Amino acid sequence: MGMQRYRINLAYRGTNYHGWQRQPNALSVQEVLEEKLGQLFRTPVALTGCGRTDTGVHALSYVAHFDLSLRLESPGDERMLWALSGMLPNDIAVHSIEACDADFHARFGAQLREYRYVLQRRPNPFTQGLATPYYHSLSLEAMEEGAAALLLYEDFASFCKAGSDAKTTRCHLFRSEWAVEGDQWVYTVAADRFLRNMVRAIVGTLLDLGRGRITLDNLHAIMESRSRGLAGASAGPEGLYLSRVEY
Amino acid sequence: MGMQRYRINLAYRGTNYHGWQRQPNALSVQEVLEEKLGQLFRTPVALTGCGRTDTGVHALSYVAHFDLSLRLESPGDERMLWALSGMLPNDIAVHSIEACDADFHARFGAQLREYRYVLQRRPNPFTQGLATPYYHSLSLEAMEEGAAALLLYEDFASFCKAGSDAKTTRCHLFRSEWAVEGDQWVYTVAADRFLRNMVRAIVGTLLDLGRGRITLDNLHAIMESRSRGLAGASAGPEGLYLSRVEY
Repeated sequence: MGMQRYRINLAYRGTNYHGWQRQPNALSVQEVLEEKLGQLFRTPVALTGCGRTDTGVHALSYVAHFDLSLRLESPGDERMLWALSGMLPNDIAVHSIEACDADFHARFGAQLREYRYVLQRRPNPFTQGLATPYYHSLSLEAMEEGAAALLLYEDFASFCKAGSDAKTTRCHLFRSEWAVEGDQWVYTVAADRFLRNMVRAIVGTLLDLGRGRITLDNLHAIMESRSRGLAGASAGPEGLYLSRVEY
Repeated sequence: MGMQRYRINLAYRGTNYHGWQRQPNALSVQEVLEEKLGQLFRTPVALTGCGRTDTGVHALSYVAHFDLSLRLESPGDERMLWALSGMLPNDIAVHSIEACDADFHARFGAQLREYRYVLQRRPNPFTQGLATPYYHSLSLEAMEEGAAALLLYEDFASFCKAGSDAKTTRCHLFRSEWAVEGDQWVYTVAADRFLRNMVRAIVGTLLDLGRGRITLDNLHAIMESRSRGLAGASAGPEGLYLSRVEY
């Protein structure tokens, strides 16, 4: 019989992982999940994820695919998910496993990716590792203006990590905005694609704007320079979540 | 000059503490907070808390008082709170310090205490240590009936830890109910007073009801027996929060 492709939806807390991507000498979410799926199905499983995430970055909603020569009777089956849940560490949760078309591709098929960046604005004992503490006074208005200004641009070279092998630095942003959620300020950004380190570089630059270290004019100059050197420092990984992927 | 009494409002994540109450050979929230307040005010500080909490139990809203012979110029001052926040570990957060009347008493003045107990009903990588995982199937309806039935009683001896030195086992419940909040089921209980271990024993018993191990009639029999031996096992501490204290 032929191969069947499966789509897997999951979430993970990135604190203890060197990101999604498998790599030598460092624990990744991909490595752990491939090992446990391999044990569950008693055959090696190779996952293709929707994208990399950096060390310490979280995923509220991550999508991957894999191919199996065996056809699972009921892949979304509750019992299978519970069995897998019992094998996985607590910081990785699989929400569903579904058979999908052979032309579904977790990485190349993604039309939209969305990230959330969570700033903890007052001390909160329950958000350690889940939000970036930032207690300095900040102008929300300036940061909202900066977030909206980014929607005018299509080239994000200024927020692209140096040495990146990206063929193009063009991204189409669908959404870029701040919201206040209790004692947290949350930046949401959605685009067709993201460059490496892009969201954290954007947030670092918006924080410079919020603190008054740069102006909105400076932000436009940064965007037009297409040079990473001018933008702000990257904000820490613990506040960043991949929150949505659409196909 | 005379003494001035101060009221302090705080929150803490109980994971790394042997409860609120200072004790030999085990780290408590009280000990850490007294030490840091003593450093801040450069004089020993003795806190009187609104009540004990068990090892690993959290507080969303905890109240304590202390007396100082020095009169703080502006006790609720932002700068003082930030200085204190910089001294405290991340799992303790002080929300306010206010001068109060000399007859305010954090423990004896409390008219209402409220607890929340959080059950994690599906695996979630972000709630470790902050909710009790409980993935068995449960009848929410049975647990709601049980929660409501408790409101008929005034004697909670059946949920009082053996060996407790409580003079009376009478408690007046104001609220006892379940709510579904996303992937969590949350039990809220408010009363004028609580016995030691009472909330966790109630939750353990309501879980027996939800799993069908006991009936509503059994619950009434447990309440009438006034014997801790008949009630369910205590639910774990990580899902329990002191959520409100009113004076």
